[in-house]
Amino acid sequence: MARFDFSTTALDGHARLGEIETPRGIIRTPAFMPVGTVATVKALYPEQVKQAGADILLGNTYHLMLRPGAERIARLGGLHAFMRWDGPILTDSGGFQVMSLSKIRKITEEGVTFQSHLDGSRHMLSPERSIEIQCLLGADIQMQFDECIELPAETREVERAMELSLRWAERSQAAFARLASPGQALFAIVQGGVEPSLRRRSAEALVAMNFPGYAVGGLAVGEGHEAMLRTLEATLPFLPANKPRYLMGVGTPLDLIESVARGIDMFDCVMPTRNGRHGYAFTWGGALNMRNAKHAEDLSPIDPESSCPAAREYSRAYVHHLIRSGEFLGAMILSWINTTFYQDLMAAMRKAIAEGRFADWAAETKVRLAKPVAAS
Amino acid sequence: MARFDFSTTALDGHARLGEIETPRGIIRTPAFMPVGTVATVKALYPEQVKQAGADILLGNTYHLMLRPGAERIARLGGLHAFMRWDGPILTDSGGFQVMSLSKIRKITEEGVTFQSHLDGSRHMLSPERSIEIQCLLGADIQMQFDECIELPAETREVERAMELSLRWAERSQAAFARLASPGQALFAIVQGGVEPSLRRRSAEALVAMNFPGYAVGGLAVGEGHEAMLRTLEATLPFLPANKPRYLMGVGTPLDLIESVARGIDMFDCVMPTRNGRHGYAFTWGGALNMRNAKHAEDLSPIDPESSCPAAREYSRAYVHHLIRSGEFLGAMILSWINTTFYQDLMAAMRKAIAEGRFADWAAETKVRLAKPVAAS
Repeated sequence: MARFDFSTTALDGHARLGEIETPRGIIRTPAFMPVGTVATVKALYPEQVKQAGADILLGNTYHLMLRPGAERIARLGGLHAFMRWDGPILTDSGGFQVMSLSKIRKITEEGVTFQSHLDGSRHMLSPERSIEIQCLLGADIQMQFDECIELPAETREVERAMELSLRWAERSQAAFARLASPGQALFAIVQGGVEPSLRRRSAEALVAMNFPGYAVGGLAVGEGHEAMLRTLEATLPFLPANKPRYLMGVGTPLDLIESVARGIDMFDCVMPTRNGRHGYAFTWGGALNMRNAKHAEDLSPIDPESSCPAAREYSRAYVHHLIRSGEFLGAMILSWINTTFYQDLMAAMRKAIAEGRFADWAAETKVRLAKPVAAS
Repeated sequence: MARFDFSTTALDGHARLGEIETPRGIIRTPAFMPVGTVATVKALYPEQVKQAGADILLGNTYHLMLRPGAERIARLGGLHAFMRWDGPILTDSGGFQVMSLSKIRKITEEGVTFQSHLDGSRHMLSPERSIEIQCLLGADIQMQFDECIELPAETREVERAMELSLRWAERSQAAFARLASPGQALFAIVQGGVEPSLRRRSAEALVAMNFPGYAVGGLAVGEGHEAMLRTLEATLPFLPANKPRYLMGVGTPLDLIESVARGIDMFDCVMPTRNGRHGYAFTWGGALNMRNAKHAEDLSPIDPESSCPAAREYSRAYVHHLIRSGEFLGAMILSWINTTFYQDLMAAMRKAIAEGRFADWAAETKVRLAKPVAAS
């Protein structure tokens, strides 16, 4: 019987070790989901994403509805078959991208009408259409349609968007009940900016609707690391312990560690691949800017501690050359190394929680990752 | 003892099956060399190039001298270690690229002074400097420095450049004798445009100098398929049977088949990777333009007969989407498929020669490759 379930197997402070069970496999939490925006994790073969240790990846409703189109993907057998990823997939609802990427948009109670950033064509997203698209894609975990606003914003505006998102949560839930397949799950998204009272209001209203998982949305949009953590602390106590908690669009290794310490179970972020394309390597010795001239004749590997073969086998000098030359292989190598680093980081967190030493591990690791890397 | 040797093991008409022995391994001929311009075969991991069946690849003196620099690569242990390719490498002399890519150049008897296409910096290439660079790179097969001119050109101009290239061949040979390591080989380059008498003059003069291999240069520069084949027919009879023959910068699958039929042993060309980046797939059913809308919902593989996993596992619909979206993975998949196709094609030619049925194989294959692909 296809089912969705979540269980925690260890607690260490607020940090949680757990498993999400889906019809397409187990997701070990805390989990980081590589982002496959347009049905590809950029510059990686799907086998590399799997090999890196990812149990689940993320697809973008906004991008996929515009190209190649949700109905087309459904005719082709769904997103999993299309992109050759047989593990679980989570799709966002399009709420965030429609605000950050589309050209002209108009928000009403019904939903959002907008013009594609690709070709200017007109489209509509509503809670019902967003869920329909996510079901056409075949997403294992789907997200309610919400309104994301930019921060800073007036409290009144934050509240208006949060209340609208609550009504859209109900409509998303109703649409999901009609359209979804057994074992698929719909997560709600807590909004409310950096206002504790609004976050609490949003969380309590959504918990009353009884979703199988809860996301914290609208963060990592410029409010800063400390404000993000304060908002988590003001939100998570109002979410049930027996449901997974997903912090959307986050973040740096430090963000992940601090958020797990506060009880977050799931993350997604473009940072490993985007920073890789831009020449940055995440390593256990801290981040490296491979474009920097100091690497030009450095024969040492990018990261001898990485579980990624590329981090151990290619020299810094070579990757520096590839990045400076704008070569595909530079982006390929660094995206692979960074995607692996993020998975290694999550695995290390899971191990530390299981062994009841998360706080010590986090303290040591934060020092390591912040350490200025010695010039070779 | 490090040595360079060439032997032919079968003849079928003018087509030759052979082996080039180098200190870094055997090159099965006829051979196609993937092009690793700036120390990377674009959009491929070196393991994929090896897995595709390539015994040798090509590096570009012009590009590498400008970035990261030949002395730097030497300090880093040579080109093989730098790019993680332990098989043989052939480097061109820079003669072709300095004419086609550099900004301002001045040719004298001594050599060529030019400005880098990257940053406008001033550089010089001469026979001696070209060989010095190729030795710094550690190339197993090196090419004489020559002057390439664009076709069509006046006969007098073609002759002048050819005669200059002969004098540069002598100087290249002298420099190579001073600088090269045991087992490395220097190939001469026959020039002379599409003038049979000039090609013969060039070939005879170079053969008198006794090089371990001979290239046919200055073709595939716009003269057309038929003129290229006529020029080969006017050149190859004047080259010794016991030395490898390399047709530079060629070409399409048809070019390769027709050139092997006339006695060519080695090729290099950017076409598999460049066309891959531009959305073209070479297949045993003919070439496909993956950008074409007819592929948008085609679930069939790119090429079920390919030895490349990507050609069998990804759908045409997915690769179409990737190419239309400008995604790295589209270029990665098609470069891999095309590089494999070229190696599969060479392997098929070697097999046909070994079995004494090259003419029949060539006739059948030309029909297959020219066949319009049925819309699915």
